[in-house]
Amino acid sequence: MNGKVVVNRCMSLDGFIAGPGHSMDWGGDRALADFVAPVDFAKIAAATGAMLVGRRTWEVGDRMEAEDPGSIDYPFSGPMFLLTHRPLEPPNPGVRILSGDIGEAVATALDSAGGKNLEILGADVAGQCLRRGLVDEILVYVLPVLLGDGIPFSSPDVARTELEPLSSTPSGDATILRFRVRKQSDQLVG
Amino acid sequence: MNGKVVVNRCMSLDGFIAGPGHSMDWGGDRALADFVAPVDFAKIAAATGAMLVGRRTWEVGDRMEAEDPGSIDYPFSGPMFLLTHRPLEPPNPGVRILSGDIGEAVATALDSAGGKNLEILGADVAGQCLRRGLVDEILVYVLPVLLGDGIPFSSPDVARTELEPLSSTPSGDATILRFRVRKQSDQLVG
Repeated sequence: MNGKVVVNRCMSLDGFIAGPGHSMDWGGDRALADFVAPVDFAKIAAATGAMLVGRRTWEVGDRMEAEDPGSIDYPFSGPMFLLTHRPLEPPNPGVRILSGDIGEAVATALDSAGGKNLEILGADVAGQCLRRGLVDEILVYVLPVLLGDGIPFSSPDVARTELEPLSSTPSGDATILRFRVRKQSDQLVG
Repeated sequence: MNGKVVVNRCMSLDGFIAGPGHSMDWGGDRALADFVAPVDFAKIAAATGAMLVGRRTWEVGDRMEAEDPGSIDYPFSGPMFLLTHRPLEPPNPGVRILSGDIGEAVATALDSAGGKNLEILGADVAGQCLRRGLVDEILVYVLPVLLGDGIPFSSPDVARTELEPLSSTPSGDATILRFRVRKQSDQLVG
């Protein structure tokens, strides 16, 4: 029994997943974990069995850790997969590199999630998964700020995708929205 | 006693307030009123004493009414103000044209709201009001769709704006998010 494939993303109310230049400055030196209620963050991490991360998101995470150690405070310690064609320098034994077809990468990562969810992190890898119909749910942390400019949630090559709202949860200063992705067959019926 | 100045906006989960070419196709020929629970729509309209609308939003509304009469089904009948420098052709006796300073326009419209809220409709007029610190709250109807492309919620000239979440309400197939705009003085304190 597999878990779900969940695209996991934080964004400003005006739809930016990062500021200009991939800045993760959400206001007052606060990282995502400072906005979300710890109990909700822990619950989402506990439902996660593996993570599949895009290269840019990985590098943003590295940069945030270097600038402010401990700022990525996500209580998850399961298998971590990085989708990239370039080897990490220096190599990191804590992550498995995948570089093949996105469908195979998702299948591999989901297999290792032990029946829990696979979390997809990164705009590009999320877009690839959405285009291939591989995503079951989208979980968005809406942060209480308008940025005006930055990296948009979607790139133009993400096709129109119909969703079904599952839940909306105030959590600390954030709001957690969860949607089910309607598959092609739903749309023919619906 | 004045009501609040509320920017009122619907958007896709990926932060677009309209599709490419200002299309208002949110899926399956459904207009905003088809997503939101009628009781919530009625409650928001009942709290509204006047509306201040930008020119493009006015024209999109005209086009929608022409293409599909009755599609804008907002139960509001109070004073309506249009911010524009070009007279309407033909003139419309149901709307008062304002063309001066945005601060004066908001004051005039708010005065006529009889102590209820002034609703601000339109990306450009909302951006002008945000830049001038005239907005008390932002109300967003999040619609269950990713568009991938379209008209973004913010234009780059909207400065970074800190918000405070007030409520998050599932409503029909939409989610209604309400935020208070933190004014400059809040930010100095906070």
